[in-house]
Amino acid sequence: MRTEDSDQARYAERSLRVLRAPYIGHGKLEILPKVVARNLDDIALLYTPGVGYAVKEILARESALGELTGRDNTIAVVTDGTAVLGLGRAGPRAALPVMEGKASMFKLLVGIDAVPLCLDVSDPSQLVDILAAMQPTFGGYNVEDVAAPHCFDVMTQAEGRLHVPIIHDDQYGTATVVIAALMNAYKLLGRNPATQRAVVCGDGAAGTATVRLLTAWGFGDILSVGLSGIIHRHGNYTEAHRRWLAEHTNREAITGDLSTALNGADVFIGLSVANLVSPEMVRRMRKDPVVLSLANPIPEIMPAQSLAGGAAIVGSGRFDHPNQCNNVLAFPGLMRGALDAGALRLDHATCLAAARAIAADVTTHELRPDHILPTPLSATLYPAVAEAVAQDLVTRGLARKSPAPGAVAENTRALREMIALRQAFVAERTSDY
Amino acid sequence: MRTEDSDQARYAERSLRVLRAPYIGHGKLEILPKVVARNLDDIALLYTPGVGYAVKEILARESALGELTGRDNTIAVVTDGTAVLGLGRAGPRAALPVMEGKASMFKLLVGIDAVPLCLDVSDPSQLVDILAAMQPTFGGYNVEDVAAPHCFDVMTQAEGRLHVPIIHDDQYGTATVVIAALMNAYKLLGRNPATQRAVVCGDGAAGTATVRLLTAWGFGDILSVGLSGIIHRHGNYTEAHRRWLAEHTNREAITGDLSTALNGADVFIGLSVANLVSPEMVRRMRKDPVVLSLANPIPEIMPAQSLAGGAAIVGSGRFDHPNQCNNVLAFPGLMRGALDAGALRLDHATCLAAARAIAADVTTHELRPDHILPTPLSATLYPAVAEAVAQDLVTRGLARKSPAPGAVAENTRALREMIALRQAFVAERTSDY
Repeated sequence: MRTEDSDQARYAERSLRVLRAPYIGHGKLEILPKVVARNLDDIALLYTPGVGYAVKEILARESALGELTGRDNTIAVVTDGTAVLGLGRAGPRAALPVMEGKASMFKLLVGIDAVPLCLDVSDPSQLVDILAAMQPTFGGYNVEDVAAPHCFDVMTQAEGRLHVPIIHDDQYGTATVVIAALMNAYKLLGRNPATQRAVVCGDGAAGTATVRLLTAWGFGDILSVGLSGIIHRHGNYTEAHRRWLAEHTNREAITGDLSTALNGADVFIGLSVANLVSPEMVRRMRKDPVVLSLANPIPEIMPAQSLAGGAAIVGSGRFDHPNQCNNVLAFPGLMRGALDAGALRLDHATCLAAARAIAADVTTHELRPDHILPTPLSATLYPAVAEAVAQDLVTRGLARKSPAPGAVAENTRALREMIALRQAFVAERTSDY
Repeated sequence: MRTEDSDQARYAERSLRVLRAPYIGHGKLEILPKVVARNLDDIALLYTPGVGYAVKEILARESALGELTGRDNTIAVVTDGTAVLGLGRAGPRAALPVMEGKASMFKLLVGIDAVPLCLDVSDPSQLVDILAAMQPTFGGYNVEDVAAPHCFDVMTQAEGRLHVPIIHDDQYGTATVVIAALMNAYKLLGRNPATQRAVVCGDGAAGTATVRLLTAWGFGDILSVGLSGIIHRHGNYTEAHRRWLAEHTNREAITGDLSTALNGADVFIGLSVANLVSPEMVRRMRKDPVVLSLANPIPEIMPAQSLAGGAAIVGSGRFDHPNQCNNVLAFPGLMRGALDAGALRLDHATCLAAARAIAADVTTHELRPDHILPTPLSATLYPAVAEAVAQDLVTRGLARKSPAPGAVAENTRALREMIALRQAFVAERTSDY
């Protein structure tokens, strides 16, 4: 235990050192001109009077905005700081490292320029007002760490007012990866989602979205478990998303707690808090259950305990265990595909298309109970997800652009190569952390 | 004339080509992680769970925000698109190339990470609401191309609500460079500003701010000329900034048009529109006048015509003529000094300190009638301006931090060197434009 503590302390120290170290300012990001200014003439071209011609061109032809500015490759990663990691209402200032981390991933993995934006706002409509006002600048939004139920209102209001794609990653990023994990688990186990019963523990942003996406996928039955126990149609719920859950889950109107819910269930999906599930509870599930225990950093049940309880396939949110179910597998490709297709909006079908592409990135040859998901290091994952998302949007008439089949994947690969070059440059000049 | 037209067309084409060409997306900027992700462990450190430690540190200690994130080196370059270059109300979309150009200059010249932000807002208070909400993310704001009189309201409201420095560049960037030009002109001509009479043509953002700054500098007398002629204390003005001008200029309550105003004036400062002044009008000014004719791209009077009319020293806004009075000489150092000192706010005295540093960047040895201002290529200009601004803020109690004398200049130099390295990297990979 003491060794673990001091490991933890060393890790914490290293995670802070890397943020203090960098050679320009602090933090994780920098905003660089990607065109070269060698002399006064170049400066005049890039600044004034050069920019005047671009302004006139955009005034004459609206589509020039995407050609002459970075707008269509630029998004904002937005939070109000109300649900930061597992730390709750940390506020918009303390949320900035998380948004910078997310923005780094967008660039590293799919070449998207992402601006971290932590907003000091008091309600969903103020947040959506700002998103609406910023649309001339951004081609899309990734909303992050906004607490339920505010996050549902943000997405509902945004759908009516925005004409750029928006992802609330805590909802659909997570849900997409859960579905991808189940798709591959069922390939291994030879099961059909339509006959399965899942217990989804946690009725916040991720839990609710996962239930919705499981439903859209055609899942058999779902029990949604919140703080007050299993949600059921005779319950009395004040919040709209819980009323939705009550109407759309739990066919047999089972009542009780998490332990009751798990009796005879085929799959456990934990999106709640640490240490809620015992090996004994896993033992009372149906034979060879799937246990995805995603509370972070301490899961509802540790992977080894799930296996001890008889689980056939186990996943967690932790990078230091097999089958990490992290939304980093989903959001980059979702947004890359959405931007390249000029998405009008994203929906459940888009997430399912992304989930299929994530699942397919693990080949039949590679697929094993302890390897049902790819990692962010996969060279093929993000091009494939982006391509699948773009093609889904084009096919269903939700795209403004029609990239040729294969073009989005090719673009994503090219962007990743360029970023790798830049990273090599940075590596040369960065002392080890 | 035809040669000039086709030169212009070639220049326009080149200015657009450079924006379409770059190797990642379009436009002028990219947002890059400046720390290296080599493997899953690095990704975990930069993203999750690594970021959790930074969040906890900021929650425990507010000052960690500046140490562990880029916030204190990051600003937004904000517009509502109501006065874009000389093109008027072009709107926030068409304004994006200008904001990207400005952001490029912030990084190239002083190492500040600047986010272009074009806002679709209807009034100054909506704009200031957004600036206030974004304060957890940004260490300062550069407001740009907001039309008068809205821009005055934005600055007044911002002063009461923001706790980060804000520059409206069309106001004080321009005014600061005008004062720097006059400081050096008067060194050459041996004149004292307290005895001079200036005509400031244009009573918009730049004209009004220039009058205010001339006044703060202790200038003798000023005539402010708007569309309805010389502003005077018996006039009836509906807008607050014109009433201010009426009270603070034109001691003798002279009435009439621009031509009348110029009779016997010592200096002409044009911040209006093309072709308002003839050589004959310059001839009726006092002997050896200073003519700064800054309308862009076509000045109130071309430099050659001013000289023909007897002007001793001539400046314009054009990069292809001597003595370019462009705010690019002022805003980078102003903001760099403000960020490094943790400025509470900027004021007239700060602008005068910056103007003195800009003027001093031209040595006595270099000073000539056709060389009264440095260019953006000066290696010493930005470190000197940033240092002067920071020291002014520290001395007058407007700073949160107390950088040691010389530290801000040294930091600025180091940042510029690093950017030069990055530009060399980009140059290797960019085809010529």
